Amino acid sequence: MDKFELNILGCGSATPTTRHLPTSQVLNFREKLFMIDCGEGTQLELRKARQKFSRLNHIFISHIHGDHCFGLPGLISTFGLLKRTGDLVIHAHKDVEAMFKPMIDSFSENLPFEVRFNHIDPNSNSLIYEDRSLKVHSIPLMHRMPTCGFLFEEKQKERHLRAEMISFWKIPIKDFQLIKEGADWISPDGTVVPNKALTKDAEIARKYAYCSDTAYNEKIIPIVEGADLLFHEATFAETEAVRAKQTFHSTARQAATIAKEAKVKQLMIGHFSARYDSDQILLDEAVEVFENTVLANEGLLYKI
Amino acid sequence: MDKFELNILGCGSATPTTRHLPTSQVLNFREKLFMIDCGEGTQLELRKARQKFSRLNHIFISHIHGDHCFGLPGLISTFGLLKRTGDLVIHAHKDVEAMFKPMIDSFSENLPFEVRFNHIDPNSNSLIYEDRSLKVHSIPLMHRMPTCGFLFEEKQKERHLRAEMISFWKIPIKDFQLIKEGADWISPDGTVVPNKALTKDAEIARKYAYCSDTAYNEKIIPIVEGADLLFHEATFAETEAVRAKQTFHSTARQAATIAKEAKVKQLMIGHFSARYDSDQILLDEAVEVFENTVLANEGLLYKI
Repeated sequence: MDKFELNILGCGSATPTTRHLPTSQVLNFREKLFMIDCGEGTQLELRKARQKFSRLNHIFISHIHGDHCFGLPGLISTFGLLKRTGDLVIHAHKDVEAMFKPMIDSFSENLPFEVRFNHIDPNSNSLIYEDRSLKVHSIPLMHRMPTCGFLFEEKQKERHLRAEMISFWKIPIKDFQLIKEGADWISPDGTVVPNKALTKDAEIARKYAYCSDTAYNEKIIPIVEGADLLFHEATFAETEAVRAKQTFHSTARQAATIAKEAKVKQLMIGHFSARYDSDQILLDEAVEVFENTVLANEGLLYKI
Repeated sequence: MDKFELNILGCGSATPTTRHLPTSQVLNFREKLFMIDCGEGTQLELRKARQKFSRLNHIFISHIHGDHCFGLPGLISTFGLLKRTGDLVIHAHKDVEAMFKPMIDSFSENLPFEVRFNHIDPNSNSLIYEDRSLKVHSIPLMHRMPTCGFLFEEKQKERHLRAEMISFWKIPIKDFQLIKEGADWISPDGTVVPNKALTKDAEIARKYAYCSDTAYNEKIIPIVEGADLLFHEATFAETEAVRAKQTFHSTARQAATIAKEAKVKQLMIGHFSARYDSDQILLDEAVEVFENTVLANEGLLYKI
């Protein structure tokens, strides 16, 4: 299977602690890197994760809170020192560009590459990135300011040809594409060879959904449904449910409820409040509702 | 003696590595904290150094390069979350304010304190801060953009009264201040009691000089002369002397030459290039010229 791996660079909330750094993740899809959020210190964690900076061309920012974007200037500046040449695209609400523009302008004359902003509308469930094998959609979330999650979907691949059957029926190359797309084949003597006899199933396309920061929001369930991995914020334990509601964050139990209702395969919780000395209480509360839950942690590599 | 301690939070150069973080230091003078430069990740190092955030009211920024100031937004934002109330003063070239203003404005409505900028002229040797016991002057440096170092000087204290002599001569309280300032005392019968007989020397006022980033610049020698501690950047070893000159940085040997000529008591070198796997070569080269040299390192606490 093609590489589809999530590296957790930071999974704390607003205040960095000696236990957790501000939010950042990097998704390695077939050796292309996609960064999701970029809190202070992200560039150093990316280095520690031994990911190649040159493979990172797209950064997705969920919202403008500092713990999700204050690492951008340092990362961009380091890209300059590393003599990067390819454009860097930042997919974010337009306010993110406004906030960082003076800073980026201050050193951009020395940058050997361009920083481009793709303004996204966090309130819509829209396609914001697409290439030959991957699509990324925004997921509208409920937070104190315009915020969206991101759904990374592998595109469905074509069916695999069975070499022995292709050879047996002496099928010409020109017919391969239609067969890979699912068509039956009709031999010169009129025999209809069903597609299933000629091909094997392609791997099932995988989905990763990232939802942070957000209050409990059932509207995201149909969007993240069936995801191979759902990252959902779980800032608080149930004892802080009132505070979670006030601050538009979720409890671990709420994250697990979304995972359960959306029938995802795996839930990862993160964005932990600095108040917890251990995240075990959050895991325990989530597992009661949805068993396949893991805790995010700095340095964690998860194969989707 | 009053506390006068330097905490090294970061002593690397432009690119943070797993060995060194970008520049930041915090000076603890009688439990008041003075921060010098604030690279990305500073707030976390300040936490690790177990320094009280509430005691930090003044930040001095040497120049606008990211490795000296990209930690400001995160630190200021965290001050907000910690419900700080006292003003925070940032002493820096006016361009620093321009660069960070949109970012600070974006969350300043939620800040329970004011961020004030004291615009300094990095090209002049001027008094930029003063309180009852400390003075800070700028030290003009030679870098690719307006840059200054900082000289922290304890104010000379008054002489200590010798209690037994004051009692012997029955000197009235109203005369104490003049005696502490160095005056002789004349008794009612006309006897002149010399000041030396009535007082002991005060502790000698201490000086800390911070010089980074800078090319070799002999003009700073009279300003930093006799400092108890001189921090001088030593980005490169002698093999990179040409590159040091081109980029307006110093070699370890040049830092040591300044220390020797200025007759400082102790030299600390830092701002190490990421190219060195060990800083020992820099220490070796410096010690050949000036023996009392130490390497800066993250977590180092130096008592001045």
